Amino acid sequence: MTAKKLKPIILVTNDDGITSPGIRVLVEEMRLLGKVIVVAPDSPQSGKGHAITIDDPLRIEHVTMFEDVEAYQCTGTPVDCVKLAVDKIIKGKPDLCVSGVNHGSNSSINVIYSGTMSAAMEAAIEGISAIGFSFLNYSFEADMSLPRRVIREVAPQVIKHGLPENILLNVNIPNVSESHYKGIKVCRQAVAKWQEEFTERVDPRGKKYYWLTGNFVNKDLGDDTDEWALGQGYASVVPVQFDLTAHHAIPYIISNWKLYGEEG
Amino acid sequence: MTAKKLKPIILVTNDDGITSPGIRVLVEEMRLLGKVIVVAPDSPQSGKGHAITIDDPLRIEHVTMFEDVEAYQCTGTPVDCVKLAVDKIIKGKPDLCVSGVNHGSNSSINVIYSGTMSAAMEAAIEGISAIGFSFLNYSFEADMSLPRRVIREVAPQVIKHGLPENILLNVNIPNVSESHYKGIKVCRQAVAKWQEEFTERVDPRGKKYYWLTGNFVNKDLGDDTDEWALGQGYASVVPVQFDLTAHHAIPYIISNWKLYGEEG
Repeated sequence: MTAKKLKPIILVTNDDGITSPGIRVLVEEMRLLGKVIVVAPDSPQSGKGHAITIDDPLRIEHVTMFEDVEAYQCTGTPVDCVKLAVDKIIKGKPDLCVSGVNHGSNSSINVIYSGTMSAAMEAAIEGISAIGFSFLNYSFEADMSLPRRVIREVAPQVIKHGLPENILLNVNIPNVSESHYKGIKVCRQAVAKWQEEFTERVDPRGKKYYWLTGNFVNKDLGDDTDEWALGQGYASVVPVQFDLTAHHAIPYIISNWKLYGEEG
Repeated sequence: MTAKKLKPIILVTNDDGITSPGIRVLVEEMRLLGKVIVVAPDSPQSGKGHAITIDDPLRIEHVTMFEDVEAYQCTGTPVDCVKLAVDKIIKGKPDLCVSGVNHGSNSSINVIYSGTMSAAMEAAIEGISAIGFSFLNYSFEADMSLPRRVIREVAPQVIKHGLPENILLNVNIPNVSESHYKGIKVCRQAVAKWQEEFTERVDPRGKKYYWLTGNFVNKDLGDDTDEWALGQGYASVVPVQFDLTAHHAIPYIISNWKLYGEEG
């Protein structure tokens, strides 16, 4: 008897919520590659970053919205979904975790605020190969053919080759027609930021309140960045790490500061 | 006439909420160094990571709880507080942003989940020198003499020397007596993680719910890590960056994968 090759177990999650069109695309594509389990938020969780739920209980509900796919909605954040999937649903590590397809960009500094990417990062912290997919088109009505194509180009590579230790992938898909799509670029995160401009309003009781708005400002003109690649019609693939240490700054601080205890 | 040296403007925030003892310590210490403005959450926001508030309006309330210090409580997350402070309260960049003193550790992987550190990171993204301070004692009754001493060792150095571009500091203070304190170590973030163990309970209506709990697991035995330093009685200072690109992984992926569009 020869050993039968088992299908990889693939955890699918997102931050737009389990009813979003983007996660359905990802579920359909992952079904072609392995056994899929969905654990996703029961409501939109955009901008939740790496938030976890400490002071509230969490609930999980089995749902039957994806044909032949085991799926659960969860009251928590995207990171909570991954933690619950590993500890209570799969009761072990899946072979791959994919998050998305996010409706909107998670390139550049957006990776920091993104629930989509934080879910993938949580999986990577757990030692699971992980990818976040985001599409630069916010509309729930958008044509998802190009995201499907990019998912088919990237996900099988991760299943085949794995990823370097403690690394996950941030994949962004440009909002161009398939005929203008140029392929994949492996890039670095552009050094860009949001310039906040809160909108100030007055409520019916005469009290001020604020809505967060802002403009994305990119002064990083490098042709090795995700912003550059996306602007040219490439899908950007940025390898992401959760060691936030600025290693190059350690010797600088030791030699420039006089610190009690640090001999330099 | 000689130019009068202006006092630095220092923004103080946290994630434990504006009424926590930790922020009061930081306000008192910063008053010795400059003009302080406090903008902090009106309720505890631990574990909120880099969450921002997109789908709800934000409110700011002027409060008078700190003697002679301009202070505001905000309905949002720690990151929202920094954004609102810059755009609507200070209407410009402070010279320094300090966050904390957090009641509990933000060493190692905790930096990812921490609202304290995310507030400091948001300031750094805005181009402001920023430091997060955390004390390895959860109690609101804890003796804060050692945190005060470490703040006095670190904050003036940042005001004097500034920080390298796009870098903030993660300062953790060990839970030891002053006589056992060994000084400052500039370190890297230890590669450690939380091992989740959700507690499962049943509510009065018979439905399951879960509480997040877990054990901190550190297999990184390097003597250059924050966990090592804290264990030895040092305060750890980790320079932190918000470029999450794993630069070393870019050539690996390009050379090992066959990708459409990427010439390698």
